[in-house]
Amino acid sequence: MKIGVFDSGVGGLTVLRALLPRISNAEYLYLGDTARLPYGSKSQATIARYAVSSSQFLIDQGCEFLVIACNTASALALEEIRLTAKPHGIPVVGVIGPGAAAAAAETATRDALVIATSATVQSHAYAAACQLLGLRSIEKACPLLVPLVEEGWIGHSVTSEVVRIYLSELHQQAVDAGLQPDTIVLGCTHYPLLREVIETAVAELWPGQPPRVIDSAEATATEVERQLPSSSAGENAQAGHVRAQASFFATDSVTKFCQLGTRFLGQPVGEVKLVDLGG
Amino acid sequence: MKIGVFDSGVGGLTVLRALLPRISNAEYLYLGDTARLPYGSKSQATIARYAVSSSQFLIDQGCEFLVIACNTASALALEEIRLTAKPHGIPVVGVIGPGAAAAAAETATRDALVIATSATVQSHAYAAACQLLGLRSIEKACPLLVPLVEEGWIGHSVTSEVVRIYLSELHQQAVDAGLQPDTIVLGCTHYPLLREVIETAVAELWPGQPPRVIDSAEATATEVERQLPSSSAGENAQAGHVRAQASFFATDSVTKFCQLGTRFLGQPVGEVKLVDLGG
Repeated sequence: MKIGVFDSGVGGLTVLRALLPRISNAEYLYLGDTARLPYGSKSQATIARYAVSSSQFLIDQGCEFLVIACNTASALALEEIRLTAKPHGIPVVGVIGPGAAAAAAETATRDALVIATSATVQSHAYAAACQLLGLRSIEKACPLLVPLVEEGWIGHSVTSEVVRIYLSELHQQAVDAGLQPDTIVLGCTHYPLLREVIETAVAELWPGQPPRVIDSAEATATEVERQLPSSSAGENAQAGHVRAQASFFATDSVTKFCQLGTRFLGQPVGEVKLVDLGG
Repeated sequence: MKIGVFDSGVGGLTVLRALLPRISNAEYLYLGDTARLPYGSKSQATIARYAVSSSQFLIDQGCEFLVIACNTASALALEEIRLTAKPHGIPVVGVIGPGAAAAAAETATRDALVIATSATVQSHAYAAACQLLGLRSIEKACPLLVPLVEEGWIGHSVTSEVVRIYLSELHQQAVDAGLQPDTIVLGCTHYPLLREVIETAVAELWPGQPPRVIDSAEATATEVERQLPSSSAGENAQAGHVRAQASFFATDSVTKFCQLGTRFLGQPVGEVKLVDLGG
C-alpha cells in the first residue's frame, strides 16, 4: 500500500510521524510544496489550484491513499482534492475532521477553541466540523506562529509573548461569547512544535481548569488506519515488524527541507527529491 | 512610455510611490506575484523561475522598461530577467545597485550595514555591490520583519523587540569586524514601513552617531529617470502636469492586495486585476 502524505511544507511530517509506527507496512510518499508555501495567507482559488496539482503528483506516483496533512488545504480544498482522486478510487483523509473529532472525544463542556492560519480560520471549516459533532467553537488566526517556528525561535521569549497575545484575545472572545472551553485544537501542523509554549500560556489564562491541547496528527493517523482496506489492516497487524519506507519530495530547496524537516519528523529525513509542479 | 514595476507582493509599491511624482508622464503597470510570495525564504532556482515569468508578463503587456522593485529578485535573478528582456531591447533596473549607491553617497566612514531577507543576504548581492563602490558592509537576515508588517504590527512592542534583537546581533557583528558603520540600508521593500522602529533601535545601539537609514526606493527612482531615453526625459520635463496612470495586477486575492497595498503606496490602490502565471 502506497500512502501519499501532502503538506505545503514540512509541518505535515508531524502527521507522517504519527502514521509510521501505526501503519508500518506501508510505503509513504511525502510531498512538501515548499516553492509555493505558505498556503495559509492565500486565497481559496490559489490554495485549491496548488493542492490539486500536489495531489495529482502523488496520484501519478502510484499512491493508493491520500492524507492531506495540511490544515489550510484540508479546510479550503478537500472537495477539489477528492474530485481529483475519485476517478482513481483513491480515498482522501484531511486533518480537520479528525481534529474536531478528537476535541469532541475529550470535551466535557462541549466548547472548543481552535488556533490556525488566517485562511483556515476564514474558511470556518473547524467551526463547521465542530458543529456537526455538537460542539460550540471559537477560531483564532495566529499568522505569526508559522514564521516564528520557521525562524527556529521555538523557546524564544518573543514567541511566548506572541502566543500570549493571541491566546489572550481568544480568551476574551470566549468570555464574551459565554463559552467554557476545555479543549484547544492546534489547527496547523506547525503548532505542535510550540505545544509547551501554548500549554504554559493556556495555564496562565485559564488558571482553574486549562483547556487541553489537541494535536490532530494522532487523530488523523487513527482515521487513516480505520479507512484502510481491511486486507491492508490485516496485513499490517501480521507484519508489524516490517519497517515503513518513506520517500520525500519538495518543490523548493531540498537542503532546507532536510534541515527543518528533521525537527518535525523527530528523526533524520533521508534523501529528498526536487520536483517541479510548474509554479 | 510604459514602465513595468514588479515585486513578489505589495512592498514594491514604495518604489512606485517614489516613481510617480518623478516620472509623471509614464503609464505604470505594477505586478505583485502574491500567489507565490514570499520569495525571500526560497531558493535561487525557484526565485529566478518566478521572477522571469513575472517579467515576461509585463513584457507581454507592452512594457518598455522594467523596474525590479523586489530586493530578493534583484539579488538573485537580475541576470535571468535581463536575458528575458534583452531580445526586446528593454532596460532593467533593480533595487540593489541603487541602494548600494545611495549608501556610498551618504557614508563618510565607507562602512555600511544591510538588513534584508534570508535569500538576499545569502546571495551577498549587497556586499558585492558595496564592494564595487569601495564600501565594506555587513548583511543581516531579518526573516520575521515581513510577517510582522503583513500582520499589521507596525507600531507593536513585539515588533520593536524583534527589531532590537536583530539589530543587536548586527551591532555585535560590526564591533567584532571592526567596522564603523554610518549607514544602514533597508534591503527589503517591506522595511520602509518599519523605518521609525528601526531608527529608534539604531539610536539606542549606536548612541553617539547612529547610522543613517537608507531606503532604496528613492535611489531606484533616480536611477530609472537617468536611464530613460532622453526623449522621454524631455517629454517628462515638458509635461509635468500630466498625471501618471497606474494599473495593478496580482496573482492572488485582489482584495488583500488593495487593503495592504494602500499602506505601501500611501494612496488608495485602484482596481486590481487577477492574473494567472501558472503557479
